[in-house]
Amino acid sequence: MELTYREAAAADLERLVQLLADDLLGASREDVSQPLNPRYTQAFASIEADPNNELIVVESGGELAGMLQLTFIPYLSHTGASRCLIEGVRIAKTYRGKGLGSKFIEWAIERARGKNCSIVQLTSDKQRPDALRFYQALGFTASHEGFKLRL
Amino acid sequence: MELTYREAAAADLERLVQLLADDLLGASREDVSQPLNPRYTQAFASIEADPNNELIVVESGGELAGMLQLTFIPYLSHTGASRCLIEGVRIAKTYRGKGLGSKFIEWAIERARGKNCSIVQLTSDKQRPDALRFYQALGFTASHEGFKLRL
Repeated sequence: MELTYREAAAADLERLVQLLADDLLGASREDVSQPLNPRYTQAFASIEADPNNELIVVESGGELAGMLQLTFIPYLSHTGASRCLIEGVRIAKTYRGKGLGSKFIEWAIERARGKNCSIVQLTSDKQRPDALRFYQALGFTASHEGFKLRL
Repeated sequence: MELTYREAAAADLERLVQLLADDLLGASREDVSQPLNPRYTQAFASIEADPNNELIVVESGGELAGMLQLTFIPYLSHTGASRCLIEGVRIAKTYRGKGLGSKFIEWAIERARGKNCSIVQLTSDKQRPDALRFYQALGFTASHEGFKLRL
């Protein structure tokens, strides 16, 4: 399985929204109607314009197989350590259980290292027990509670 | 108790590092030596240069009483919802237990609303049971595991 990684392009947007929607939790929160909800194109433009945000896709045999977003954040704490936040990790259903997710996260960790981050962090919904095991197997420690507040 | 909120300035940096160090977990990870470790000044400059990062201090009677950092992040998920990430919340010891922390987080939530964020999120170390109760009382839901990986 040969994988390639690149930043998402505007032409990927429709496929990315499908990927977000094709998910236990995403099904009820995304909008796959056509034409594409302008909130998605606006969000994509904001991500693209921000040098500290990278929306990354992984391709296998030329097919878009997964996505995630990296945010690089400078902090004072831990003696001025930058961190990399990973969010929105999605693997297309046909590519699950094949080790692609692990390779994708390992790639993201290397990217964080290349950006001089000292900590990689992410939150994972407690309704996803497989994901929790997955991140622990990759060396992540569930040391924190992940709090959310919807406005 | 009259509180004022403002972005941190370079002149606050020494005090902010003291605040980070005067903490159960921070004591072992911060460097309060003089002159200030240049990693702090570099991190501060990076935060100041990034329009999506705001290092906020709260003052009471002209005295710096607390700090936190806000990061505004555009995402595709939740139909293109921006989020506000809160990190590095610290309240000076003499100001704890007086409701200042709640007012500070409520201020941060309003700031997130003003920046059109749909979700406010944060992680809190499981070694801080008081903090966990504090965020729940403010309406946050501990729906996620917070994973960290030190590089």
